[in-house]
Amino acid sequence: MILLHGDIVYSESAEKLTVRENSYLSVDDGKVEGIYGRVPEKYKGVPVEDYGRDLIIPAFSDLHVHAPQFEQRGIGMDLLLSDWLSTYTFPEEAKFRSPEYAEKIYSLFVKDLLRQGTMHAAIYATLHLEATDILFELLEKAGMDALVGKVNMDVNSPDFLTETTKESLRDTETFLERHAGGGRVKPILTPRFAPTCSAELMKGLGELARKYRCGVQTHLVESKWEAAEAVRLFPDCCSDAEIYEKAGLLDTDVSIFGHVIFPTEEDYRILRKHGSFAVHCPDATNNVIAGIAPVRTEQEREIRVALGSDVGAGHGLGIFKQAARAVQLSKLKEFYEPDVSKTISFANAFDMATRVGGSLFGKVGTFGEGYDFDALVIGGTEDPEIPMDAALRLERFCYTGDDRNIRARYLKGRKLGEE
Amino acid sequence: MILLHGDIVYSESAEKLTVRENSYLSVDDGKVEGIYGRVPEKYKGVPVEDYGRDLIIPAFSDLHVHAPQFEQRGIGMDLLLSDWLSTYTFPEEAKFRSPEYAEKIYSLFVKDLLRQGTMHAAIYATLHLEATDILFELLEKAGMDALVGKVNMDVNSPDFLTETTKESLRDTETFLERHAGGGRVKPILTPRFAPTCSAELMKGLGELARKYRCGVQTHLVESKWEAAEAVRLFPDCCSDAEIYEKAGLLDTDVSIFGHVIFPTEEDYRILRKHGSFAVHCPDATNNVIAGIAPVRTEQEREIRVALGSDVGAGHGLGIFKQAARAVQLSKLKEFYEPDVSKTISFANAFDMATRVGGSLFGKVGTFGEGYDFDALVIGGTEDPEIPMDAALRLERFCYTGDDRNIRARYLKGRKLGEE
Repeated sequence: MILLHGDIVYSESAEKLTVRENSYLSVDDGKVEGIYGRVPEKYKGVPVEDYGRDLIIPAFSDLHVHAPQFEQRGIGMDLLLSDWLSTYTFPEEAKFRSPEYAEKIYSLFVKDLLRQGTMHAAIYATLHLEATDILFELLEKAGMDALVGKVNMDVNSPDFLTETTKESLRDTETFLERHAGGGRVKPILTPRFAPTCSAELMKGLGELARKYRCGVQTHLVESKWEAAEAVRLFPDCCSDAEIYEKAGLLDTDVSIFGHVIFPTEEDYRILRKHGSFAVHCPDATNNVIAGIAPVRTEQEREIRVALGSDVGAGHGLGIFKQAARAVQLSKLKEFYEPDVSKTISFANAFDMATRVGGSLFGKVGTFGEGYDFDALVIGGTEDPEIPMDAALRLERFCYTGDDRNIRARYLKGRKLGEE
Repeated sequence: MILLHGDIVYSESAEKLTVRENSYLSVDDGKVEGIYGRVPEKYKGVPVEDYGRDLIIPAFSDLHVHAPQFEQRGIGMDLLLSDWLSTYTFPEEAKFRSPEYAEKIYSLFVKDLLRQGTMHAAIYATLHLEATDILFELLEKAGMDALVGKVNMDVNSPDFLTETTKESLRDTETFLERHAGGGRVKPILTPRFAPTCSAELMKGLGELARKYRCGVQTHLVESKWEAAEAVRLFPDCCSDAEIYEKAGLLDTDVSIFGHVIFPTEEDYRILRKHGSFAVHCPDATNNVIAGIAPVRTEQEREIRVALGSDVGAGHGLGIFKQAARAVQLSKLKEFYEPDVSKTISFANAFDMATRVGGSLFGKVGTFGEGYDFDALVIGGTEDPEIPMDAALRLERFCYTGDDRNIRARYLKGRKLGEE
């Protein structure tokens, strides 16, 4: 049992933040037990970790990130997507044929995730089996919640980064077999996107989904080109999402769709039907994709919208920054498409960044009773000159803060950096 | 005489960066003397400050920033402009009636400007004379280049933040008289924007401009509302810029127009004719203004476009971040207005952030011979895994870096933090 004192802020809905200033949060066996205005009688004598007026908030969830692109953050950002992929991304991903390289870069990646306050993530590796195993094990060792995918790409990809259909299915099955079971880190099917997967591969992945009861993550209608190309290549489907539905990839477990910028009504219907996640990646969208996801419309259609860093198209792992950027982009979307979308509130953005994203992984992302205590202590955003309530201080952190403001991290109730 | 060694990057045009890797820069009497691939014979024996492969770049220029809004960074960012102003900005600015408060906040502001690598700035104070004097003196003491304005607002402003026309002109003249002369910090006329200035006030400011030969800064066509309201209130003018031209405010010295998001052809014509600066403030534009300035069109019309943080509508003083954001917004503008604008290169954005902005202040902002040596040493962006040339490392700094990457600062040849 531990007790923490501070200004506790978390989200229970997209409508408003729940704020419990100057309060006590009790953690029992790694899980939130309760929040109290004063120390309850039954806990008298339990030592209090007192964070004063610092904020205690849930850790963040990143539902779309490419671990092998970690090293290429922030370069070539003024290029077109196709040039950026061919100049930087594909050559970098090809390096992960080396397990030594994978070990080195994936270690840095996992360390930086935690540094930036992200404790739950849905992650793309590369097509390389051994490197993907290494990433999987590093995440397990860190104790995080994660879904990890060996990427599938057997067509329309550079020679040095293509696998045969047979190799792709064989290595994917090996990956699923190796990591079957119920740990915090789970394998997930990861067809890169429809244009890089043959119909035969997609069918085979559907069979693996049924056999291993696993979920799927991919990029969906991330550009007008991709939306059109997907249905051109899969002519029996009339929307991008239908490709995955028809392959049987949406029936067995979670489905996570990155970007979802140009969905059709059919895409909306399929995502809602299967309880899929749409992942909004503001910086990435802005850097190399162009276009703004219809977050408000997705929410109105009762689709779960979470946030993603999409490193390396996004240039940093901090999901708190993406919360701020989500508000910014919603303002621009309202400006350019006033009939389609309105500005979202900061509370809504924070909800996506924590509670909604966390719901992919079970009871994480908020401070309800019984939820895993995955939390951050945020300081240095208070101001002696402008009294700011905890919600404003949280907003200021997301807009102006960085990892220096994260003064402590708790993962499953355990304070990191102290073992 | 000092010699610095490192990877030297600066801008001579919007087209491309000038990169001199592994080179030596000589500084004589605070000014750039030359750049050499090896130590010239004549400088043998001069001690070298060796920064290895760190970048040596010109310091940044911020051409639109509100010093009294420094404390309110990053709060209320999901509000509409009008609500944000009435809830946070106007009450905060009103506090600067207290010289003690001004001293405290303006000290923090000046310190953070330098921390973020900005050494030249065009700054709005408030309407308060004494507080504005304090800001002026703090900047002089810091040794920076700056233009500082006492804000004018005699109509359409909250009761607690309005002056009479007479007070406004009297205090402005006092401010100009006190600070006449040729230091690095200069006074500048600062009508907040046309809607907060009566015709009589605007006329009086024109007379002061002629009498004191000083320049002007203001907000121009920052929103559709403002653009329409300005010409409604000044019915003898057919564009926002014409209000200032007719008042005689553009004839005597520099003119700096913040935002310039919805210019008419007449605005373009006037800005070009008077050699005015248009200041692009990407984050601010995105946070509370909505709309994207036509940077490329302005450049094509041969208008000088610089960058501004516009704190507090912008949430941070780092102009390097605004360079990255300028590229991002140009991508969105191309997406939404493909006929009007194309993506700008990172080199173009860096040029705005340094050389173009610096040109307001004389020979600063680049490393030509005889330019003031106002410079930053940038480290921690190199990568052992991906060999990156100096231009890419600079881009990475602007996208992913923060003040920790600024390892040394030189102002007029003097290394800061060492006296």
